Amino acid sequence: MKYRLLSPGPTPVPERVLTAMANPIWHHRTPAFETTFARCRDGLKWLFQTQQEVLTLSCSGTGAFEAAYCSLFSPGETVLCVAGGKFGERWANMAKALGLNAVVVPCEWGDAVDVQRVKDALDQHPDAKAVTVCASETSTGVRHPYEQIAKLVKGKDDCLMIVDAITALGVWDIAPERDGIDVLVTGSQKALMLPPGLAFTSLSDKAWARNAKAKLPRYYFDLAKEKKNQLQNQTAYTPAVSLVEGLLESLKLMHEEGLAGMFARHQRLAAATRAGAQALGLALFAKAPADSVTSVLQPASIKPDAVYKGLMNRANLTIAGGQDAVKGKIFRVAHLGYYDELDIITVLGAIEIVLRQEGYTAFTPGAGVGAASEILKDGFVAKKA
Amino acid sequence: MKYRLLSPGPTPVPERVLTAMANPIWHHRTPAFETTFARCRDGLKWLFQTQQEVLTLSCSGTGAFEAAYCSLFSPGETVLCVAGGKFGERWANMAKALGLNAVVVPCEWGDAVDVQRVKDALDQHPDAKAVTVCASETSTGVRHPYEQIAKLVKGKDDCLMIVDAITALGVWDIAPERDGIDVLVTGSQKALMLPPGLAFTSLSDKAWARNAKAKLPRYYFDLAKEKKNQLQNQTAYTPAVSLVEGLLESLKLMHEEGLAGMFARHQRLAAATRAGAQALGLALFAKAPADSVTSVLQPASIKPDAVYKGLMNRANLTIAGGQDAVKGKIFRVAHLGYYDELDIITVLGAIEIVLRQEGYTAFTPGAGVGAASEILKDGFVAKKA
Repeated sequence: MKYRLLSPGPTPVPERVLTAMANPIWHHRTPAFETTFARCRDGLKWLFQTQQEVLTLSCSGTGAFEAAYCSLFSPGETVLCVAGGKFGERWANMAKALGLNAVVVPCEWGDAVDVQRVKDALDQHPDAKAVTVCASETSTGVRHPYEQIAKLVKGKDDCLMIVDAITALGVWDIAPERDGIDVLVTGSQKALMLPPGLAFTSLSDKAWARNAKAKLPRYYFDLAKEKKNQLQNQTAYTPAVSLVEGLLESLKLMHEEGLAGMFARHQRLAAATRAGAQALGLALFAKAPADSVTSVLQPASIKPDAVYKGLMNRANLTIAGGQDAVKGKIFRVAHLGYYDELDIITVLGAIEIVLRQEGYTAFTPGAGVGAASEILKDGFVAKKA
Repeated sequence: MKYRLLSPGPTPVPERVLTAMANPIWHHRTPAFETTFARCRDGLKWLFQTQQEVLTLSCSGTGAFEAAYCSLFSPGETVLCVAGGKFGERWANMAKALGLNAVVVPCEWGDAVDVQRVKDALDQHPDAKAVTVCASETSTGVRHPYEQIAKLVKGKDDCLMIVDAITALGVWDIAPERDGIDVLVTGSQKALMLPPGLAFTSLSDKAWARNAKAKLPRYYFDLAKEKKNQLQNQTAYTPAVSLVEGLLESLKLMHEEGLAGMFARHQRLAAATRAGAQALGLALFAKAPADSVTSVLQPASIKPDAVYKGLMNRANLTIAGGQDAVKGKIFRVAHLGYYDELDIITVLGAIEIVLRQEGYTAFTPGAGVGAASEILKDGFVAKKA
């Protein structure tokens, strides 16, 4: 069977982008590369809805998060990290590994963090230099109330709001200046429709002011050095030039659809996926679902990971299973990036077949697809080319 | 005019590799990716001529060097860094930035380091935990005597030999166990014929033993965590999957040529480039030239960077100019990776034209190409397909 990819990263790369990346390699210290990079910088500012420079790093999103820590803090400083999933926990573990005092703000997997808990943690730790939170927690499919948390942080002189938007940016309307985000981090292989290998971050003036006094050791991940270079359309170290070529093409694709179009499409695909799963009698795992990835509890009657493995082994279709605390118990369908209405129909149809093969038959065949199609029909009109 | 790339990184990517990377993206947590990754691991061990695991990182070569420092040393420990060029100096600056005590072993740009100086530095710093050296110093085109330095380091119980082979591995015969190299680092965009974005490192048992006591903070660049994952054909964080696809194809190409064939070709291309430049009355800059890149002093009579800029602006051909200490004074022609005999003819022919345009006419037209062709004819026979 054809290979189909509906995982929350890597996500599929459009043919136009694949073709752009297959062009012969340019040297990066050339006017041609600099022209491409300048256009990417403009496009990234548009996508990030920011006046700040958006820095391009050659690493995964995890690397960009490390760059933010290294470039903004000093050993022993306190950061409050909202848990509630694999990635929220990762940023706490990373802070510890780098010598910061990471205070975990607890949150059950599947829940959105209680803003009062963050407020309490800030009151308990008046010396906190940052709060970290995942806008979209990829491991649970939850959207955390980062806007409300940002309001708490905004009033504090020396505390930064750091948002992991790795599976959020480009999916819904995030604008760092408007939303009070001091550090926004994302990766290439999500809504940006690229292969993994690049990551991006933008910093507020408040964050740049902190950079001057930050003493954590850094070299590859030195954001001030990158900013100095990237303002000249260069990077501090050799960048992943083929991915930068792809980035220019993916930014063109996004521009053609427009931010409003992208956000509306992601909202529609997410709503349809949720409706489809529920119409099969399945419960959503995320209490506050993000529009990037839909997490669904497996029926108790079937084997752990049966949907994920069944799709992988019999339909050659990759979604995501559960990780860590919810391994085997949930499955996750991605719809961020290069997806359209018929991709959702396809994956729901495949899930129906696999569920029936696994012995779960508590639904009328076609019920999931039918419920989704009621929502998807709103997008089912010809778009400008 | 067509674009031609003869810089020491990025280097051209073969069409077969470009096409492989343009395949639809696979998810990395799949048996298909794991099969690809397992084959890459085997191929990398063959290329590195090592029994050790060769770790794949999603970053540039600079990132892999940082990974070695972070994973092997503790704050304040002494490392002796052979200077003599931009990259030798970079590893000293990086060591300082990461909180190590970097002792620079001085070396004039263009010279190979005097081994006695390294011996003296080791005697003066009996607590040194490592010596770093560039096998091929890309900024000067020099081959440093890393094998002799390795012999000095081998006798010391707690001192590692770290070799930057970013523009050396795949060019000539380097075998870490045989040559006494504890840490070998290379990048994707050089002899490996890939775009930038991946880097590779292998560690000796002696280096792995050090890893356990190393206290520098690390997270993204944690080699022990990578080893644990990569033994299972996975990576700790999302890898640059399209570049891994390309890597498999480039390893196939290298395997078809064979290590001996690769080394002989690079030797031939380097010898021809040197002979061609000298036949134009130009002096080589490197006292001990590496077979990866040929650095040539510009005639005093022409404008700084005239050859580099003339080729770029009028022939759409990128070589490299001089960096830092020799900016404007030398030009560098790369011949590592996807190059053959006619590429050398092409670049020498282009250099002849540019030199004459710049007013340097102290040679008979065709003299450079003619001298090179005497050497290149040895490789000018049909190869197995």
